[in-house]
Amino acid sequence: MRITVVGVGLIGGSIGMAARRGGAHVVTGWDRCAAALRQAHARAAIDIAAGGLPEALAGAEIAFVAVPVGALVETVAAVLAAAPRDCVVSDVGSTKRLVCAAHDDPRFVGGHPLAGAETAGVEHARGDLFEGATWYLTPSPATSGLLLDRLFRFLRATGARPQAIEAELHDRTLAAVSHLPHVLANVLVSQAAGALGEAEQRIPATGPSFRDATRVAGAPGSVWTDIYLSNADALVEQLDATIARLEGVREALRDADRRAIVAWNDAAREDRRRLLEAGLAGEKLCELRVTVPNRPGVLAQLALGLGRGGVNIVDMALHPAPDMSEGVLAVWVGGDEDGARAQELIEGLGFPVVVA
Amino acid sequence: MRITVVGVGLIGGSIGMAARRGGAHVVTGWDRCAAALRQAHARAAIDIAAGGLPEALAGAEIAFVAVPVGALVETVAAVLAAAPRDCVVSDVGSTKRLVCAAHDDPRFVGGHPLAGAETAGVEHARGDLFEGATWYLTPSPATSGLLLDRLFRFLRATGARPQAIEAELHDRTLAAVSHLPHVLANVLVSQAAGALGEAEQRIPATGPSFRDATRVAGAPGSVWTDIYLSNADALVEQLDATIARLEGVREALRDADRRAIVAWNDAAREDRRRLLEAGLAGEKLCELRVTVPNRPGVLAQLALGLGRGGVNIVDMALHPAPDMSEGVLAVWVGGDEDGARAQELIEGLGFPVVVA
Repeated sequence: MRITVVGVGLIGGSIGMAARRGGAHVVTGWDRCAAALRQAHARAAIDIAAGGLPEALAGAEIAFVAVPVGALVETVAAVLAAAPRDCVVSDVGSTKRLVCAAHDDPRFVGGHPLAGAETAGVEHARGDLFEGATWYLTPSPATSGLLLDRLFRFLRATGARPQAIEAELHDRTLAAVSHLPHVLANVLVSQAAGALGEAEQRIPATGPSFRDATRVAGAPGSVWTDIYLSNADALVEQLDATIARLEGVREALRDADRRAIVAWNDAAREDRRRLLEAGLAGEKLCELRVTVPNRPGVLAQLALGLGRGGVNIVDMALHPAPDMSEGVLAVWVGGDEDGARAQELIEGLGFPVVVA
Repeated sequence: MRITVVGVGLIGGSIGMAARRGGAHVVTGWDRCAAALRQAHARAAIDIAAGGLPEALAGAEIAFVAVPVGALVETVAAVLAAAPRDCVVSDVGSTKRLVCAAHDDPRFVGGHPLAGAETAGVEHARGDLFEGATWYLTPSPATSGLLLDRLFRFLRATGARPQAIEAELHDRTLAAVSHLPHVLANVLVSQAAGALGEAEQRIPATGPSFRDATRVAGAPGSVWTDIYLSNADALVEQLDATIARLEGVREALRDADRRAIVAWNDAAREDRRRLLEAGLAGEKLCELRVTVPNRPGVLAQLALGLGRGGVNIVDMALHPAPDMSEGVLAVWVGGDEDGARAQELIEGLGFPVVVA
């Protein structure tokens, strides 16, 4: 199969590497940035570095547009114009309605792999980036069934889990679980920075709740501005709902309405449990909290102990005390059985532990 | 010195253990819950389990009230009534204005140690819980200098770092860096749970941004309801400001105002950097992002590698891919020098790593 990748950054480069792994595909790459194109070739993410878009797409059977969200609409149009009649064209943008609405070509299928959010650039591209990752596809009624099937089978072969979803539902969902958390993290840091100024440097060590809530604050504007703007209406809806919820909490606090505060907090506790269980690949998670001295080697000892006992750590977060001398480590493992096993193993190592 | 602890949970029990470590103090404990009192005695957190408040306070020179925030005002009143004339009385509540306003006794000093937020109960009490922890004190103009000095020196001996702050400033600051993040985490999970219902279980794996932002959601209502209510006005102020900021973002999105979105995101990025540097015990942090396969032993290998190289991990967070097969590990270490060393060590282990 002849694969073309337009935009050879982290995602485009990884698509190329995934395609080339089996040896059954020939990958042609093109990028406006000559250095990125050279690097993609040097890293063997592509077989051929094309000299331009028409050359890149000559004879292509699958073409991926892996450019920033802001450049999607025009780049997809250019690729559709240059691509052969029987070539399926897809993109990898984080929002889907705009690009899908702009192209009702039977060859076009919108796409969005949930992978690689934490880094960027072809230097981090990997052939196994999509192993097990959800890869949303947003076909339209106009989409050719034959071409969709070709794309689907290719994605399966990269290890991804392609999943069809309406562009509308995709964008609304991502607004709630990704774009809104980014906005709130930004708002939190800026507000705390204001308080920091007011307190004239007498502000305390910001606690673990603050650090957790603001880890994604200030995500690269080069990526996120386009995501926010291309999903503006869905995000505005989420902001409206958020503001309404915050106004509700504000009223309850103003009225000193204990019953309302309790009910609101209990509901959040229950919602969090449901989301943790449903959200992570359908896996039920068990959360443990371990008190540990914060010195080199302790996390290693714990992780090794769990690893030796056959328990895989799904997620973890260390909440250090302000002076870093100690901390509470939250560890998530898959399911109650692993949880019980992990508790036993950690107790065996002599650390205080509770199942949260 | 004769120390009395009223309320022998995590904090009260740890105060007792810290006091008893040196052997120079006699610790008397009392708790409304007989089982907790027995357990505190069994764990050697206290020397004497008193039969009631008057017995507990007979001859006391320092008394700590370590009960939930909602019971503070009345318990401090009862302790002041029963305590000797030259006994300093302090508390450990997370909010300070209410309890301080209620007691202008020269023997009373409000207090709030930043420690132990992640667990509860005397079974997790430890003599070194306060090592290096900031311990806010909110003396009033009425406070006896002699008694404040006694309390201060005792706290220093437990390893804590007592720091005087106005009750007003304390509560406003904590509203921004602790109480508000808890409220937003609650709001986020409830909103996403709504979206989950709407998407009829077709919602994706919720991403790392979502998990980070909601880790503290649904914190125990038994503790947090009182914290929220006792700091209601400061928290309402924070909510007002948050709502105003969200309305600003909403307007920029509605107007598709790219320049405003870029400026807002850049400001948050800068604010986060400032807070990371200023917030954690004044230490400058360096953040690294490492791509790792997500299998038992890998985190151990990394943590061990850094530990052997003398680099201490201040904080870390694993963002797994939806299928858990791999992830990006964010690691925070102290300062640029440790950062460079950590990068070198991690590269030596063969993992892709960038300094964020």
